Amino acid sequence: MGIHEECGIFGIYDKSGNCAETTYYGLYALQHRGQESCGIAAINDRELSFHRGLGLVGDVFSPERLQKLNGTMAVGHVRYAPEDDNRPENAQPLTLRYAKGSLSLAHNGSLVNSQQLRIKYEYSGAIFHTSTDAEIIAYVIAQERLRCGSVEEAVNRAVKHLKGAYSLIVMSPQKLIAARDPYGFRPLCMGRRGDAVVFASESCALDAVGAKFERELEPGEIVVVYQGEVNSIRDHCCGKSNFCIFEYIYFARPDSIISRQSVHEARVMAGRYLARKKPVDADVVIGVPDSGLSAADGYALESGISRCSGFIKNRYIGRTFISPGQEDRERMVRIKLNPLKSTVGGKKVVMIDDSIVRGTTATQIIKLLRDAGAREVHVRVSSPEFVAPCYFGTDIPGTDSLVSCKYNTQELAELLGADSLGFLDLEDLHKIAPKAQCGFCDGCFTGKYPIDIE
Amino acid sequence: MGIHEECGIFGIYDKSGNCAETTYYGLYALQHRGQESCGIAAINDRELSFHRGLGLVGDVFSPERLQKLNGTMAVGHVRYAPEDDNRPENAQPLTLRYAKGSLSLAHNGSLVNSQQLRIKYEYSGAIFHTSTDAEIIAYVIAQERLRCGSVEEAVNRAVKHLKGAYSLIVMSPQKLIAARDPYGFRPLCMGRRGDAVVFASESCALDAVGAKFERELEPGEIVVVYQGEVNSIRDHCCGKSNFCIFEYIYFARPDSIISRQSVHEARVMAGRYLARKKPVDADVVIGVPDSGLSAADGYALESGISRCSGFIKNRYIGRTFISPGQEDRERMVRIKLNPLKSTVGGKKVVMIDDSIVRGTTATQIIKLLRDAGAREVHVRVSSPEFVAPCYFGTDIPGTDSLVSCKYNTQELAELLGADSLGFLDLEDLHKIAPKAQCGFCDGCFTGKYPIDIE
Amino acid sequence: MGIHEECGIFGIYDKSGNCAETTYYGLYALQHRGQESCGIAAINDRELSFHRGLGLVGDVFSPERLQKLNGTMAVGHVRYAPEDDNRPENAQPLTLRYAKGSLSLAHNGSLVNSQQLRIKYEYSGAIFHTSTDAEIIAYVIAQERLRCGSVEEAVNRAVKHLKGAYSLIVMSPQKLIAARDPYGFRPLCMGRRGDAVVFASESCALDAVGAKFERELEPGEIVVVYQGEVNSIRDHCCGKSNFCIFEYIYFARPDSIISRQSVHEARVMAGRYLARKKPVDADVVIGVPDSGLSAADGYALESGISRCSGFIKNRYIGRTFISPGQEDRERMVRIKLNPLKSTVGGKKVVMIDDSIVRGTTATQIIKLLRDAGAREVHVRVSSPEFVAPCYFGTDIPGTDSLVSCKYNTQELAELLGADSLGFLDLEDLHKIAPKAQCGFCDGCFTGKYPIDIE
Amino acid sequence: MGIHEECGIFGIYDKSGNCAETTYYGLYALQHRGQESCGIAAINDRELSFHRGLGLVGDVFSPERLQKLNGTMAVGHVRYAPEDDNRPENAQPLTLRYAKGSLSLAHNGSLVNSQQLRIKYEYSGAIFHTSTDAEIIAYVIAQERLRCGSVEEAVNRAVKHLKGAYSLIVMSPQKLIAARDPYGFRPLCMGRRGDAVVFASESCALDAVGAKFERELEPGEIVVVYQGEVNSIRDHCCGKSNFCIFEYIYFARPDSIISRQSVHEARVMAGRYLARKKPVDADVVIGVPDSGLSAADGYALESGISRCSGFIKNRYIGRTFISPGQEDRERMVRIKLNPLKSTVGGKKVVMIDDSIVRGTTATQIIKLLRDAGAREVHVRVSSPEFVAPCYFGTDIPGTDSLVSCKYNTQELAELLGADSLGFLDLEDLHKIAPKAQCGFCDGCFTGKYPIDIE
Repeated sequence: MGIHEECGIFGIYDKSGNCAETTYYGLYALQHRGQESCGIAAINDRELSFHRGLGLVGDVFSPERLQKLNGTMAVGHVRYAPEDDNRPENAQPLTLRYAKGSLSLAHNGSLVNSQQLRIKYEYSGAIFHTSTDAEIIAYVIAQERLRCGSVEEAVNRAVKHLKGAYSLIVMSPQKLIAARDPYGFRPLCMGRRGDAVVFASESCALDAVGAKFERELEPGEIVVVYQGEVNSIRDHCCGKSNFCIFEYIYFARPDSIISRQSVHEARVMAGRYLARKKPVDADVVIGVPDSGLSAADGYALESGISRCSGFIKNRYIGRTFISPGQEDRERMVRIKLNPLKSTVGGKKVVMIDDSIVRGTTATQIIKLLRDAGAREVHVRVSSPEFVAPCYFGTDIPGTDSLVSCKYNTQELAELLGADSLGFLDLEDLHKIAPKAQCGFCDGCFTGKYPIDIE
Repeated sequence: MGIHEECGIFGIYDKSGNCAETTYYGLYALQHRGQESCGIAAINDRELSFHRGLGLVGDVFSPERLQKLNGTMAVGHVRYAPEDDNRPENAQPLTLRYAKGSLSLAHNGSLVNSQQLRIKYEYSGAIFHTSTDAEIIAYVIAQERLRCGSVEEAVNRAVKHLKGAYSLIVMSPQKLIAARDPYGFRPLCMGRRGDAVVFASESCALDAVGAKFERELEPGEIVVVYQGEVNSIRDHCCGKSNFCIFEYIYFARPDSIISRQSVHEARVMAGRYLARKKPVDADVVIGVPDSGLSAADGYALESGISRCSGFIKNRYIGRTFISPGQEDRERMVRIKLNPLKSTVGGKKVVMIDDSIVRGTTATQIIKLLRDAGAREVHVRVSSPEFVAPCYFGTDIPGTDSLVSCKYNTQELAELLGADSLGFLDLEDLHKIAPKAQCGFCDGCFTGKYPIDIE
Repeated sequence: MGIHEECGIFGIYDKSGNCAETTYYGLYALQHRGQESCGIAAINDRELSFHRGLGLVGDVFSPERLQKLNGTMAVGHVRYAPEDDNRPENAQPLTLRYAKGSLSLAHNGSLVNSQQLRIKYEYSGAIFHTSTDAEIIAYVIAQERLRCGSVEEAVNRAVKHLKGAYSLIVMSPQKLIAARDPYGFRPLCMGRRGDAVVFASESCALDAVGAKFERELEPGEIVVVYQGEVNSIRDHCCGKSNFCIFEYIYFARPDSIISRQSVHEARVMAGRYLARKKPVDADVVIGVPDSGLSAADGYALESGISRCSGFIKNRYIGRTFISPGQEDRERMVRIKLNPLKSTVGGKKVVMIDDSIVRGTTATQIIKLLRDAGAREVHVRVSSPEFVAPCYFGTDIPGTDSLVSCKYNTQELAELLGADSLGFLDLEDLHKIAPKAQCGFCDGCFTGKYPIDIE
Repeated sequence: MGIHEECGIFGIYDKSGNCAETTYYGLYALQHRGQESCGIAAINDRELSFHRGLGLVGDVFSPERLQKLNGTMAVGHVRYAPEDDNRPENAQPLTLRYAKGSLSLAHNGSLVNSQQLRIKYEYSGAIFHTSTDAEIIAYVIAQERLRCGSVEEAVNRAVKHLKGAYSLIVMSPQKLIAARDPYGFRPLCMGRRGDAVVFASESCALDAVGAKFERELEPGEIVVVYQGEVNSIRDHCCGKSNFCIFEYIYFARPDSIISRQSVHEARVMAGRYLARKKPVDADVVIGVPDSGLSAADGYALESGISRCSGFIKNRYIGRTFISPGQEDRERMVRIKLNPLKSTVGGKKVVMIDDSIVRGTTATQIIKLLRDAGAREVHVRVSSPEFVAPCYFGTDIPGTDSLVSCKYNTQELAELLGADSLGFLDLEDLHKIAPKAQCGFCDGCFTGKYPIDIE
């Protein structure tokens, strides 16, 4: 509740066609990564067609729209955007023409040198239609393409200019190219469905389209699909790896498997560590839906305390919901989340949440539990305290807004109205994903980033 | 997955105004009871205004629409409808003019003598604009109103003519009237918010609007709110009570409390009975979301087997989802529901579902679990076998479609591809709601109905 | 500009099918008679389907909607409605079920005893869903149907109860019935297209669907189409005839021919009479588009003064136009209507308008002409002064609002800012339609109505 | 019927605000110049906001949208587009960021060196999001801006690179700049409303917003509005002038005055020349609405033959109209245009149309007239024969499609089914606009263009 990812991306090469339709289902599975806009671009016999719009996948694509996007390659995108940036022209995939024809591009992540690149290009006469990093990346690729012999080589050369987080899918009239930045901040995996090749931000999208997971892209790897052949460029694979650990904690869907590590299991593990390090005498463990549920499983398994459903979340509240007004935050939370009195009434409750940013929502939820009769409310958070912003594609705010920068745990517990409060220990953070074959970026919890931020 | 309720109703008298807005939030909380159409009618200074439409509450009401429906009384409705009956004119509340002015009416349930009443009225020259029972009930009230002195008396006299299930909220220019049929098939409760009086199908809607639950309406009771005064007519309260037990098993929201019995706890109890009577040696208990989750809690608590998240349900699939086609049922289920491999892989799994109608969805879900690596799949159903249709407001189909009418449990397990299958014992059915101060209708499980069906 | 008709109706029997599509084009031709809502009902193999909605024909019907309304009979309606009456449930054709099956009904006109009938039915227990006369007429037919052997006989018997203006098209599962009230207030004609039989408010709709005009329905006549056979019931044809003369002056499309009289020619004739009786020394004759154009032709032909285009009307201003605000009436008129400076600059202008109700729009138009350089503006109105309201289906307001009830011609000219003003003489009114084989209702010009108004 | 203009543009500086609203009304007046997409960009306190979309002005802008576009400067655009080019990203004003901040640009016309410029930029690494010339012009300006000190100087320097037709309105955060190419192909005028400065494609838009016409921009002139001061750059004003004469014949609204010449009067004059050179013995002159009406006035005035309304055009046929299918062209024309039998029945008719492209529509209209009883149909066309395509912003097709390239007048008359056929003599073409203080481009009638076409 509160932190947002920048996007989800999907790409497919399938010579038997219907690629836009497959992408549609893939995007449905990635919708949790971005709900503000979406789009699909498809290539049919070298001809590009595309459709983008504001809103959910189900709102933007009608059956008629989808049918028009026939093709043997397609790339799709779902986008999260803060309100002032949520404009039609920012919807992706970005589609454009350059010296060598058409190009479509879907991006997940955030560059840290976008401002410098933008200024550099502007001062060579470039014009920008969007406020996205995708457009900057497109410029880099378009310019490099003039200095080399293929679009994949242009992507490869672009890596030298791009600083930050970027998982990309690029589509030219004949090639589908997936690339991951050398730090591997954001996820990107690859699967197969018969002869078809599929790329997706998360493996849950492969499941949704019936594709078999093959492997993660390595940090720095560029995979090229051309006439069904798959080739890799590994010039920038340097063995480093700084995967965003908050993907395991919150962003990714629990049924995704990233770098061999089940996301659900990582959350269960976080719950187990919490139970070991921040135990409490209680009657029942409940998770704040949906992101706290897996960690609640873990806390319960480790502590032996019963794990029960604690809240019913209203599944119908979406973009069209008329909010009762920001001032009436309590009423808002009550409509979204109703505690189960029979679970919490008269009980000592352990409530598991995934993170605390400003603390306002947590305060309301704790109040709801007390109103529903909870005798004690012990909050356990399946991540460490946020102490620094993210520069790599999530909207974790500046330290001014982070409640953990202002209060210690004891003070914060009082502020929230909790009987006790415990965060995941920083030393346990990397242990929640023991199977993951990657290193991590934990900058938002430590203030230390793999790339220097100016 | 598959059985539908006919509707949810909500009404409020609040002299401080904003009743349409409150009804809007109440309907959001009742949206699970009907998603095909909805509406709100409001009275402001004796003047009726209303808006109805096809779709979810969030689609039908814009802020502008809602603001126009100002008032000190309002009644709202959400409606489930089979596809061929999902027409704008069938949306409720029904609003009409009759000899004594305007009348608005919201109905949940199903009459068994609607055909006879309709023919009787038609042969006295009546015309019908809709295919709803609400219109028939309105005729009965309108005709009785001519023979007595008040609208509440007309409702009271109408009871003699109406056979079947009906929870009603009726609004005249000055009065708000709630009524429940003498069998009490469908739920209807009452709450207070300061001086305001609120009626709703389920207590979760009272929670959503910040009202305090006061009590259930008795079967046969008519409650009249006039200028803030609340009065009851109990001429038809005969002590009988035949509340639909499937409301506890499936329809109602788990956070609702009906007749003093928590719905969630009833489901937990069903899970416990299943664990006692249909035990199995297994590694993990999982519930089919969302309706199987509470019973899974119960099965786990009673059996001691770990209860874990087994599936991730796609929360974005709604009315605008473009289905991959009915023939491709497997693909459809896979997009909606993805098993957690880390939970079920290599495990002996107990899967808890709320009911089995045709068996097609269950077959697909079991297949998904096996594909995800489950070693054994033991299906436990938190209700008895369906053996007969419902005539009182749910769309349980005829015996031709009910798979339990054709196969015994052993055969059905094989058909579904389950390693074992167990239903809630009929003898335990009534025990799942021990706190409920009511009798039950269990016709769909027994073929015995409280009212003779011709 | 200002006076509105209540509606236009269309019906077709064509055993070769596609009747909804034909009705769609027929309604496009009748759209000038009502722009607030519309609908089509069709019978296919005795099964009724229908669609109605607020807005223009082009907004309400998509290709998908239209295709679903397949059938061998159809009835359509376009409706004008004042803002407070423009509700979805008032859209026609009214479709309903009664003792003998389904009934669809489209009505043009206005009953003068609707209030009495409504009260009578309400006090026998009837309920009303709409505020339309169509629903009252449907009740009368439904009740009479119980006392006789056929729907056409029921319509025939209904005539005795209905007082006022009604051109009707009624559709039962097997029959298409057109009827005109015994006074013949509103138009209704019949045509053929091969074996198909077509009814329409105006002949321009027959032209639009490629049907050949056959004849007007007589006042009081009921025409029944059953299995391709056409029969007439003439029990109420008494030779009287009181056709609304304002249809010739303003409502009807100029290309329609009503009762053998071309509407355009009637307007030309009105212009001629104006030129004879209200001559003026001028340089140019201009018509206020669109309704003043034909009369301007006549004034020019008779007077010998040149007839030129005087205004350009903005063709894009429709329902979605954001008005600059009622107070800024001048700006509003200027956006809608721009005078041709080259036509009027420095000229003595005769401006022909069809009628003057409140005088506000005319005042603005005259100001526009002066601003555009007109030296003199002589207003000639192709109808007499409005002195009384209409009770038969048009929204000519009460005498309080009619400017001709407050001022004599001289005063009014000054009020409008015209150099001179002349109305069609009352004695010439009936002469404008010399070929018309009917008598007229001229109540709005004389205060004398063919039916007593209580 | 058939030839389309590329667009209409509007701009305003008004320090009192509400510029987007004024632009909205201005665009309504220019809607005839483009109906496929539209947009408004506004500057408020140096901040740019904008909205664009497919459809008519009334469809794209809701009151809420309009209110959000508050500002003291605004630029608007209406766009015509062939179907395959009608995409959201092509809607204008183009809005972008470049080295010096934001830029908005609205363009009417067509470059003849756009392909060369596009390739040049692409091969320096540029990317293109749209298929519009506006984007190419924006690149030129953005690049020149880096080499000079102001945006107006950049526009001035851009003129050297741009070959073809362009009337432009450019808006930077502080300046509003209007420019016309040195040939003056497309119209652009300037007006005042108090202190406010207004630019528009046609003077009818000045009338609509209550602005007073001041003057035409000279070919090659650049007008800069900065803090209310108006300055001109005339470096490229070389005295040449090649205004599109087809603007007078067809595109412009008759109530516009261009280069001191009333458009309506030019058409009247064309009609007069036709009457002199292509006389015929006839009973009545009719114009094909709307574009043939003014010329019909002229033909009648000159010949003495009566001018009467000949057709009623259906005013409701717009974007949502469901066409009866291209094959059924006759039916289509009949729905759009109905002849007045009373005008043409038994008569020798002169029918005035503005131009003949493929001849298909004319053939149908002539057939309609004969079906309506016309004894003879003499077609007179108020322009010469089309013999060559247009490269400067209208969609006059190639010679393959131009019927006058294949047949002589006699043959064509037979093909159309006309009794006689006459075009405006080429030698009279320039005489229709005697007051116009400009030279003309008549390339589509002569094949001779002011700029060499490669």
